Amino acid sequence: MSGLKIIGEKINGTRAHVARAIERREAGVILDLAVRQAEAGAAWLDVNAGTRSSSEPDDLVWLIKTIQPVVDIPLCLDSANPQAVAAGIQVVERPPMVNSISGEPQRLQGLLPLVAEHKCTVIALAMDGTRIPETCDGRLEVARRLMAQTRAGGVPDENVYLDPLAMTLATQTDGAQITLDTIRGMRREFPDAHLTMGLSNISFGLPARSYINRAFLTLALAAGLDSAILDPLDREMMAALVAAELVLGRDRHCLNYTRAYRAGLFSRPEVRAAQS
Amino acid sequence: MSGLKIIGEKINGTRAHVARAIERREAGVILDLAVRQAEAGAAWLDVNAGTRSSSEPDDLVWLIKTIQPVVDIPLCLDSANPQAVAAGIQVVERPPMVNSISGEPQRLQGLLPLVAEHKCTVIALAMDGTRIPETCDGRLEVARRLMAQTRAGGVPDENVYLDPLAMTLATQTDGAQITLDTIRGMRREFPDAHLTMGLSNISFGLPARSYINRAFLTLALAAGLDSAILDPLDREMMAALVAAELVLGRDRHCLNYTRAYRAGLFSRPEVRAAQS
Repeated sequence: MSGLKIIGEKINGTRAHVARAIERREAGVILDLAVRQAEAGAAWLDVNAGTRSSSEPDDLVWLIKTIQPVVDIPLCLDSANPQAVAAGIQVVERPPMVNSISGEPQRLQGLLPLVAEHKCTVIALAMDGTRIPETCDGRLEVARRLMAQTRAGGVPDENVYLDPLAMTLATQTDGAQITLDTIRGMRREFPDAHLTMGLSNISFGLPARSYINRAFLTLALAAGLDSAILDPLDREMMAALVAAELVLGRDRHCLNYTRAYRAGLFSRPEVRAAQS
Repeated sequence: MSGLKIIGEKINGTRAHVARAIERREAGVILDLAVRQAEAGAAWLDVNAGTRSSSEPDDLVWLIKTIQPVVDIPLCLDSANPQAVAAGIQVVERPPMVNSISGEPQRLQGLLPLVAEHKCTVIALAMDGTRIPETCDGRLEVARRLMAQTRAGGVPDENVYLDPLAMTLATQTDGAQITLDTIRGMRREFPDAHLTMGLSNISFGLPARSYINRAFLTLALAAGLDSAILDPLDREMMAALVAAELVLGRDRHCLNYTRAYRAGLFSRPEVRAAQS
């Protein structure tokens, strides 16, 4: 188990085969993703019912009821729709994470009371409305306003997962540096809050994305990221994570690293096949 | 070509088949390593004639004369023996790098005048004699004494490649952090000097070393390392390097990254075989 708290991203209705499984109520597809992500070390499972907005509350409730009997980790309710989140909260067995609030007033006003009342943790995006501030200062300014709101709403800082946001390097050479600076700034200003992020945006539109995502994860860990939204079934990503935590001095006596090695994390699939 | 200046490490007489090739004067083995490392992006080729001390000067001269007609990059004369380095300097065509001086007086007094006279670049290890200081402060203290000596000896700072030294994580959990702190301190105190390091010591005694080496390289680049002694034929290492430089904002318009992609750097060998 890594020190980084992983939010497993695979149960997402914007992916075609997950959308199909949700629409057809095919539990097997969903359970497979749930169990495998939990086994791979996810601390939460993100559940996103997709884009059919009229049925989103029902779809999200079905996902939750399908998943929670088979895994013992909490869920992360991934929706901008307060009705869907409210419906989901009624059926979860463990306090969930809510993904996400932002500076956008309607979303904030709809979701923040639910978060506070049900003692959820919540991802808070460093953006107002649909606009992501280009600079580190701009994102920190949004984060300050958001933290003022969560505090006023009765959500303790340790239940807030600030998201510094990543923009693709394809259009902005210093995009990752801005995000890393934002992580360091958030860590400094809000030491009790957590920091999480969807890593893969950084490589959108570029080839061989996994290499970029792994370098970005390594640097974000060093900057202070303590949670990430990622695919825990991506073995090279998980191997890079375990190695980075070792190098960062967070793995006493290399215990986690050597345990992962014995479990075969660093073996190529073809090597594992030859050994089995 | 990466921004990091790579010292290709493979022509090293402490490796058994290289030692055999040197002893038998088998040029083919050496030339193959020289050409492939140069093609893979090495800025220098390290040449280490191995441990047969009586014949080391002759062996080093043979290596140099063998290699330099076929590659147009300079050599890095890797020897603690001033006689061998002096013999090597007589036959090199391009000003070489000398690997290495340290605080050890005899080595310093033997090698520094050669470095100054022949306008070599030189690797300066942050250690006195055989002792590597455990702390960042201790290594910086040695670096200060060494820089005072190179300056007094007439070697300009930009010809010095300070080596912060890496100790294995197998015996010291914060070993990499100490090295990274040392890099940052050297960068701050000696802005005109370069910083280089043999990366792979960090993972000595641990399994799946390449994962650790890559995470360490990524973090060392961010800390300010601008050169490294590594195996440029290790494709996963080179891919991690190109990705890390992209994430660090050092690859405008992703040009180097996309060029490396088109050249096949990110493809697995089996994929490349299937495509060819």
